[in-house]
Amino acid sequence: MNDQFRSPAADTLHAARLDRLAEIAVRVGLGLKAGQEVVITAPIEALPLVRRITEHAYKAGSSLVTTLFSDEESTLLRFQHAKDDTFDNATGWLYDGMAAAYKSGAARLAIVGDDPSLLAKQDTDKVSRANRARSKAYRPALDLIVGFDINWTIVSAATPAWAKAVFPEVSEAVAVAKLWDAIFAASRADLDDPIGAWNTHNANLHARTKLLNAKSYATLHFRGPGTDLRVGLADDHEWNGGSSRAKNGVVCNANIPTEEVFTTPHKDRVDGFVRSTKPLSYQGTLIQDIEVKFENGRIVESRARTGEAVLNKVLETDEGSRRLGEVALVPNSSPISQSGLLFLNTLFDENASSHIALGQAYSKCIRNGGSMSEQELAAKGANTSLIHIDWMIGSSEVDVDGVTAEGEAEPLMRRGEWVTQ
Amino acid sequence: MNDQFRSPAADTLHAARLDRLAEIAVRVGLGLKAGQEVVITAPIEALPLVRRITEHAYKAGSSLVTTLFSDEESTLLRFQHAKDDTFDNATGWLYDGMAAAYKSGAARLAIVGDDPSLLAKQDTDKVSRANRARSKAYRPALDLIVGFDINWTIVSAATPAWAKAVFPEVSEAVAVAKLWDAIFAASRADLDDPIGAWNTHNANLHARTKLLNAKSYATLHFRGPGTDLRVGLADDHEWNGGSSRAKNGVVCNANIPTEEVFTTPHKDRVDGFVRSTKPLSYQGTLIQDIEVKFENGRIVESRARTGEAVLNKVLETDEGSRRLGEVALVPNSSPISQSGLLFLNTLFDENASSHIALGQAYSKCIRNGGSMSEQELAAKGANTSLIHIDWMIGSSEVDVDGVTAEGEAEPLMRRGEWVTQ
Ligand SMILES: [Zn+2]
Ligand SMILES: [Zn+2]
Ligand SMILES: [Zn+2]
Ligand SMILES: [Zn+2]
Repeated sequence: MNDQFRSPAADTLHAARLDRLAEIAVRVGLGLKAGQEVVITAPIEALPLVRRITEHAYKAGSSLVTTLFSDEESTLLRFQHAKDDTFDNATGWLYDGMAAAYKSGAARLAIVGDDPSLLAKQDTDKVSRANRARSKAYRPALDLIVGFDINWTIVSAATPAWAKAVFPEVSEAVAVAKLWDAIFAASRADLDDPIGAWNTHNANLHARTKLLNAKSYATLHFRGPGTDLRVGLADDHEWNGGSSRAKNGVVCNANIPTEEVFTTPHKDRVDGFVRSTKPLSYQGTLIQDIEVKFENGRIVESRARTGEAVLNKVLETDEGSRRLGEVALVPNSSPISQSGLLFLNTLFDENASSHIALGQAYSKCIRNGGSMSEQELAAKGANTSLIHIDWMIGSSEVDVDGVTAEGEAEPLMRRGEWVTQ
Repeated sequence: MNDQFRSPAADTLHAARLDRLAEIAVRVGLGLKAGQEVVITAPIEALPLVRRITEHAYKAGSSLVTTLFSDEESTLLRFQHAKDDTFDNATGWLYDGMAAAYKSGAARLAIVGDDPSLLAKQDTDKVSRANRARSKAYRPALDLIVGFDINWTIVSAATPAWAKAVFPEVSEAVAVAKLWDAIFAASRADLDDPIGAWNTHNANLHARTKLLNAKSYATLHFRGPGTDLRVGLADDHEWNGGSSRAKNGVVCNANIPTEEVFTTPHKDRVDGFVRSTKPLSYQGTLIQDIEVKFENGRIVESRARTGEAVLNKVLETDEGSRRLGEVALVPNSSPISQSGLLFLNTLFDENASSHIALGQAYSKCIRNGGSMSEQELAAKGANTSLIHIDWMIGSSEVDVDGVTAEGEAEPLMRRGEWVTQ
């Protein structure tokens, strides 16, 4: 078989699905309002998707669409050639400009397709200094995003480097085509009525969060091979999932795809042990078979079959990096899980399985959390950290109970699936 | 012959010249100082040149290199699909960000490769509204550039659309290769010691401006077929050419290539008639065989063999658009002129021949003009306008005299060449 060959029919199908993904991004992801400006960030390889999104955004009445392209090769050239004393710099002027755009009403669309190991071989000190400078400079703009002041979304594009990491055994062209097909399927862009399918999917996720919010469990209890973990939930925690209304009044789906319902654990009330069920791809390192033990919310023991040193470095980031900021439930029958792929990208992998996240909690997962101070949030049990790293703990062998304040256990998931539909 | 075929040797040569052009852009164009941030703007097709420039900038000690890529196809999608009431918008937040970068010490590198007729078929009202909004939003950043507060440069890259416009008779691949070769030659990137060649070239241009400044002519007198034009020069005019020192102290070459020495005419002292010697490419229209008559600095009659309507619309922009803002001398033996190509791009075409520009004057072409108010500059004779459009009036058939304050004519150019070397 000739790897380079794609039939005209395959090209037509790809173009149609790319256009559908663009429509999903604009209508479902952003929920774009007429007259709204759009700021897109994208890897340069995502140009064809950027153009489809640009057209759909203008058709939906966008006042102006601007794309800020990034080039990973240029990023790499920095680490290879810049002088050692320059790595504490970041483009504050650009991030400030983006924050100004959001404040004046712009929506935010991120296209991701990162090479999972771009900086794996670069000097870790330079990388962490550059990351820190970037995080600091980006903070004012990022606060408007994670605080949901504006409608935003993240979608993905199959770039050659990412595709080769997911499908190392085939040619680049085949890998890219396979990854696109996986993205289209996970994002429901392979369906004839993707907008209708997303409406149904959002309704299902909303029904699930409504049920869980009505229960208001004190604790989730995970049991499976290597796992017996009690995750206490924050006081006044709220479950979220699917579309949500930003503070600017626009209903958006922040992640395309999304399969999870999630909430905030109590930072001091996590106990027991847990084993990861899928590898975690973190900045070029694959961390496999994580096993940790929690006491009073804090990780007191940790090991991993591969990447243990990186894991332990992550845990030392700050006080909050040893505690949980998120717990999420995803059935094992989710389309992403069923694909059997490890995407090496959180946007996909966290939607393949129930998961927990080390680090920062989401204020919107606390009732009225959006208007609370950091102290008020902490008093409810919400964790604070510079990191937020999701890792997978669900599988077809894992059961989950919801435990009421009275200590009564109710079955939520059995063998990885919801007990009630 | 197979158009698509390029030999490995041709590829190697192209890569070497691209790298040399990048080195010229960084070392000659920007004169980059260690620790300086660099802001690049580039068409997305210029990615290979952007990467070479990025590497050279980091090697020269740049603190951070950021490229803002533009995509002409996305621009076109705006004019095709955006609602009619949106064309007065511009990305003020991005231009303000760029201005902030320049104010904090960044250098500015523009890569141009525009499709000369990208918007030729679009609604002229939408185009002019978008241009006006963009000009207004860009003004604060542009002022720092044209006022030479910072070091900056413009270089070019052969994009497919531009290449096909210059070489319509060959395939796209051949056209791009031919245009690259022309760019390399005009930019001296085809030489073994391009930096040395640029040093010599700058020294020659400086010697020429020194001579002309010492003469301080009252008037330039152009004579040739269809031309008998007296261009009075502004009081305290200064000739410029080649590299110059920006207000931040850095010596840069603002245009790569550059062959001209130029100064400011007196806006009220231009008389006679003049015929263009090369076509003018203006926003997708080719304006050929322009013939205009000046009285007291003002164009009182105008016609053109093609594009006359566009020319007359340009002349109606504002009061200053009928008067001159620049006069420049370029010998007919300049490498760009000798290539015999019409580049459909001012960066090249204005360096092929002596030229005049309708519209805005450069304050740096008036002695101490950088610190003068607009009124002070106008009192010296410097013109003001929203436009600055260069068009070619030199050729091997045109003679130029310098006329002293006492009315004595001295031969400057004969048959298009300098009389003194
Ligand atoms: Zn999650
Ligand atoms: Zn998460
Ligand atoms: Zn000029
Ligand atoms: Zn000019």
